[in-house]
Amino acid sequence: MAQQTSVVGDPGASLLLTDLYQLTMLQSYFEHGMTEVAVFEFFVRKLPERRSFLVAAGLEQAVEFLEQARFTETELAWLAKSKRFPRDFVDRLAELRFTGNVHAPPEGTVLFADEPVIRVAAPLPQAQLVETRLINILHFQTLIASKAARMALAAPGRRLIDFGLRRAHGAEAGLMAARASYIAGFAGTATVPAEPRYGVPIYGTMAHSFIQAHDSEEEAFENFARSRPQSVILLIDTYDTEAGAEKVAQLAPKLAADGITVAGVRLDSGDLADHARKVRKILDGYGLTDVSIFASGGIDEDALQEFVRAGAPIDGFGIGTSLTTSSDVAALDCAYKLQEYAGRPKRKRSEGKATWPGRKQVFRRCAADGRMEGDVLTVEGDAQDGEALIRPVMKDGKRLAPPPSLDRIREYCAAELARLPEPLSHLAPGAAYPVTVADALRDLAAQVDRETR
Amino acid sequence: MAQQTSVVGDPGASLLLTDLYQLTMLQSYFEHGMTEVAVFEFFVRKLPERRSFLVAAGLEQAVEFLEQARFTETELAWLAKSKRFPRDFVDRLAELRFTGNVHAPPEGTVLFADEPVIRVAAPLPQAQLVETRLINILHFQTLIASKAARMALAAPGRRLIDFGLRRAHGAEAGLMAARASYIAGFAGTATVPAEPRYGVPIYGTMAHSFIQAHDSEEEAFENFARSRPQSVILLIDTYDTEAGAEKVAQLAPKLAADGITVAGVRLDSGDLADHARKVRKILDGYGLTDVSIFASGGIDEDALQEFVRAGAPIDGFGIGTSLTTSSDVAALDCAYKLQEYAGRPKRKRSEGKATWPGRKQVFRRCAADGRMEGDVLTVEGDAQDGEALIRPVMKDGKRLAPPPSLDRIREYCAAELARLPEPLSHLAPGAAYPVTVADALRDLAAQVDRETR
Repeated sequence: MAQQTSVVGDPGASLLLTDLYQLTMLQSYFEHGMTEVAVFEFFVRKLPERRSFLVAAGLEQAVEFLEQARFTETELAWLAKSKRFPRDFVDRLAELRFTGNVHAPPEGTVLFADEPVIRVAAPLPQAQLVETRLINILHFQTLIASKAARMALAAPGRRLIDFGLRRAHGAEAGLMAARASYIAGFAGTATVPAEPRYGVPIYGTMAHSFIQAHDSEEEAFENFARSRPQSVILLIDTYDTEAGAEKVAQLAPKLAADGITVAGVRLDSGDLADHARKVRKILDGYGLTDVSIFASGGIDEDALQEFVRAGAPIDGFGIGTSLTTSSDVAALDCAYKLQEYAGRPKRKRSEGKATWPGRKQVFRRCAADGRMEGDVLTVEGDAQDGEALIRPVMKDGKRLAPPPSLDRIREYCAAELARLPEPLSHLAPGAAYPVTVADALRDLAAQVDRETR
Repeated sequence: MAQQTSVVGDPGASLLLTDLYQLTMLQSYFEHGMTEVAVFEFFVRKLPERRSFLVAAGLEQAVEFLEQARFTETELAWLAKSKRFPRDFVDRLAELRFTGNVHAPPEGTVLFADEPVIRVAAPLPQAQLVETRLINILHFQTLIASKAARMALAAPGRRLIDFGLRRAHGAEAGLMAARASYIAGFAGTATVPAEPRYGVPIYGTMAHSFIQAHDSEEEAFENFARSRPQSVILLIDTYDTEAGAEKVAQLAPKLAADGITVAGVRLDSGDLADHARKVRKILDGYGLTDVSIFASGGIDEDALQEFVRAGAPIDGFGIGTSLTTSSDVAALDCAYKLQEYAGRPKRKRSEGKATWPGRKQVFRRCAADGRMEGDVLTVEGDAQDGEALIRPVMKDGKRLAPPPSLDRIREYCAAELARLPEPLSHLAPGAAYPVTVADALRDLAAQVDRETR
């Protein structure tokens, strides 16, 4: 098998980025005329112990994928040449476009188990084929936004920056994590293309290698400050953190004479709270009370909570691996399930994996103070009290409205997090939120069970 | 900040896919004439408890990235427009190419903590800029190959297929995981573009939605078999696993009359070992002893080991989330560190993060039966017994040899796994392997400490 790297360019933009079984199923669907409308919903089956809520994210990339979904000439030629499929099937794939309807909660919405992250209603081959990539996009961004929200809640008022591209799982993971964490309350990312691609603010200073490459730490600090006077944040832990702070204090007046202000220092090793206290004292002793302290290195939401509780004088945090890999929960238990075909509701009954059938709606009731009180999961069309979360997004393969700006999604998410019931806004596991299954949905499930052999 | 999705196409091919601090450091390096040769090494600092060895992977993509590294016109225009950097710096970025030397162990090599996965020697700005993406590629593929190797060792002789694209962290993670797991012993993947892109064999059958969309399970089975007679593997757990096996047994003679053979059945829920035994009995009772049983659903290496120990009659496994997210260890503690600049060895001494300086070599000694006995980590040029693992890969920005085929890398990796000391070939944590630091390296570290303030 020769390597033919030219067949696929941006892997994320390829309709070929799917599981082979989607194509084998499609062949059979076409051959047996099974092209009526199928309704699939994507949802999380069960929340992990360390997540008491989810933050929906990735809808914009999912919609872009559906809008642009087609096989390229090169991909079709490869499929034909592989001899895996009959020629007429490959010809039908060439014509395939997404012409269906999509419903979803807005990005940034707080969600719980069983509540749809997206609903796709389209001719069966279309709705089936897009499964893999839709999950691939929505699962990951929801995973990261949900993790980032915990961090934002654990460190209110502190500036959180995503440092995680290097240990993210590939290029797209790094980029999407920058976007999803910004939605959930991060201030920005170090990942450069996240700004041109998504509009996420980018931040960056220096690495240890910069310090080491110079003959002395002082020279490194000064060279950097003179090259980048607009944002002087100096990394002070390469050799000895407190000695580094002293050097910054010595350098600051010299730079100030040339109109350059030291904005901050960064700590990246050792007991960060302890070093931050000592460094704060050193800087304040020289009157450098405006120099902020930024910390990074193995930080997760539990560490953030501890820093805040302990009153560590740290103004901002760079958070890498734990964020972009969602290291404590690397994946959510989720599924994209057929809920209806040709007008008939459907349900999977596999052991431990049974699902609720039909097109669903979620109604959310809130208290007078705006806090969420409880959700009702029901079938579309069943009227319930509260706000309906699942809203139309695409019709006949076209968007119904221009996408909201990322900043607007971020503001909406902040409002959502502010509405969380108080116990859910803490990191401790075990905080439950009532999601009730409406009678209408239970009745439908019972009806489907009676009808399905 | 308007969204400008056109600035970046395939994110993985972009030299802009880096941390902002790489660019700010580069500006200072250029302005201060710091363009002498820097040597960086990428290595894992400490193995996680559940990994007693690593499998190096991703070198081919790393080399491709270095060979093709350049900023596109669009990226440069965006950088200039962002006003973050002076014009002459952007002009220098336009000329930037990778002209350095690369050393590395071959892909598929078994490695341990502190042993270089790659060494880059290039003018400082080049070697610095590529850090983020090199780690992004090499960390992830090494993470996945190391996880997949545990699965291959836990289930010798069973066919393992990667099913994990949907829950992989983005598009590239899914593709790279297919490649890395194939190197470590998987038989293939469900991810279609992994074949044209990397030459990984692809496999696929049907999903529950296929069964549900039909009026009956029997109809679904027969439709599929007639459309895809070359590979009839039927998913039998949508409603009732053993009833599904009975339906397969009833259908098989009818298909056989038309020359179609049922190759296998797949189970995806419940107690897989128990269902497999019952299904095997049902199939054998009808004389269908050649129909293989394939299982999937939440399987990891511990589950594989249990199936094998219990003698479950399962011929192959589809493995998803636990593989492509390396769910128990979502990231490795790794670093790309400056080891030498302008001919002078360098060392970071941050608390708990001190590194060995200089250009390193690893020598591996093996017993008479070929099993690995121990490694020596030393400086390049220091002669030690055993095989030298770190070999030249690129010189002056060019590859020294065409890349080995993926199948050859896979064979090499199989030979590596066969050479593991017996305790390391089991899943149990705690198996140690001796990596000795040579006197020559200790002396160099002491010398650097004396010279660095």
